[in-house]
Amino acid sequence: MRGDFHDELARVSSSLVTMAKAVREAMRQASAALLTADHTLAQRVTDGDAHIDVLYRVVDDRVFDLIARHQPVAEELRVALTALQAAADLERMGDLAAHVARATLRRHPVPAVAPELAGLFRAMSAEADELAGKIVSALADHDAALAARLDSDDDAMDQLHRRLFKVMLSPEWPLGVEAAVDGALLGRYYERYADHAVNVGHHVIVLVTGKTPERG
Amino acid sequence: MRGDFHDELARVSSSLVTMAKAVREAMRQASAALLTADHTLAQRVTDGDAHIDVLYRVVDDRVFDLIARHQPVAEELRVALTALQAAADLERMGDLAAHVARATLRRHPVPAVAPELAGLFRAMSAEADELAGKIVSALADHDAALAARLDSDDDAMDQLHRRLFKVMLSPEWPLGVEAAVDGALLGRYYERYADHAVNVGHHVIVLVTGKTPERG
Repeated sequence: MRGDFHDELARVSSSLVTMAKAVREAMRQASAALLTADHTLAQRVTDGDAHIDVLYRVVDDRVFDLIARHQPVAEELRVALTALQAAADLERMGDLAAHVARATLRRHPVPAVAPELAGLFRAMSAEADELAGKIVSALADHDAALAARLDSDDDAMDQLHRRLFKVMLSPEWPLGVEAAVDGALLGRYYERYADHAVNVGHHVIVLVTGKTPERG
Repeated sequence: MRGDFHDELARVSSSLVTMAKAVREAMRQASAALLTADHTLAQRVTDGDAHIDVLYRVVDDRVFDLIARHQPVAEELRVALTALQAAADLERMGDLAAHVARATLRRHPVPAVAPELAGLFRAMSAEADELAGKIVSALADHDAALAARLDSDDDAMDQLHRRLFKVMLSPEWPLGVEAAVDGALLGRYYERYADHAVNVGHHVIVLVTGKTPERG
């Protein structure tokens, strides 16, 4: 790759690392706020989402400049366009962390997660944090092998998600409709966060190798 | 704009119209299947999602070629990149239609929508269809003014979504947890479908005018 192009791409890549760290921290705080009904912390996450949106725009602008100035083709163009997709997935992960935080704010001072579901949500938030941590590492270390392993990690989240519905829909479910509706939506947010993390994993493979795995 | 570039962009634009028509039809069929517990129709929607994914890849490839061959800058580059974002939002709308269809398949032969919620979901599906119809027209007719009006149309969906939760969470809710969980998730799918439609509206403004409204 040409020198300048490579330097500017490195700056894009470093912005993606910053975004990944931010959306990891956002979900970590949103989960802590959810599990402890912490209004202040939840508010910090919803307030902080604007910062993630700014980071997204920074990546978007940098990639735009990169393409306009260097007019890359083939692999270089594919890498530049993939950086945009990775940024879009990361931005969405930030939104989902904010959704979790808003559920906490809505129900405060009552916890949005019923005690019966706290264990499952603790596991889902640990899983989300692990996926986000791997994205940060894969992006920072240009580690395509680590990124490729995200697919199987996502299975753990899917299993937790299925267990959540089993608990809520069992005849023994002791709580009302509201707790189940909250549980269903929160479960969906964590599941989607994991889906986007897996997408970012796919993008990292392209960013590192210049090849799109699915299309040969 | 240069001749060739313009021709190829017109082909991209026509692929976006095809995608928009497909995701409108997918949600229309998914809604009909949902409201009549029609297994065959729901299955057709889930099967058809692969076709929408193919259309997405066609747009992606065409835009890639467009940028690689013509090396656009400034407005032309912005338009090309926006076409990619529009395609991504449309692809996601197809996914959400498939989610609605899968809820129907999961509960069959029981309807996934309780009779108490059928009216609201009929209204949400009508709203989704209207938004999708406007996207088709705005894309086909290069109508930025119509696209700009999608923002306010989305308010109607948000109101229906809020009414849905009011009904399910009222003390008079006559049905169990399962019906409410289904209702909450289905409501979320329609709401997200509308959100993506609004995003496509924003993209159409850029596609037609070459200007990004939010950033001046």
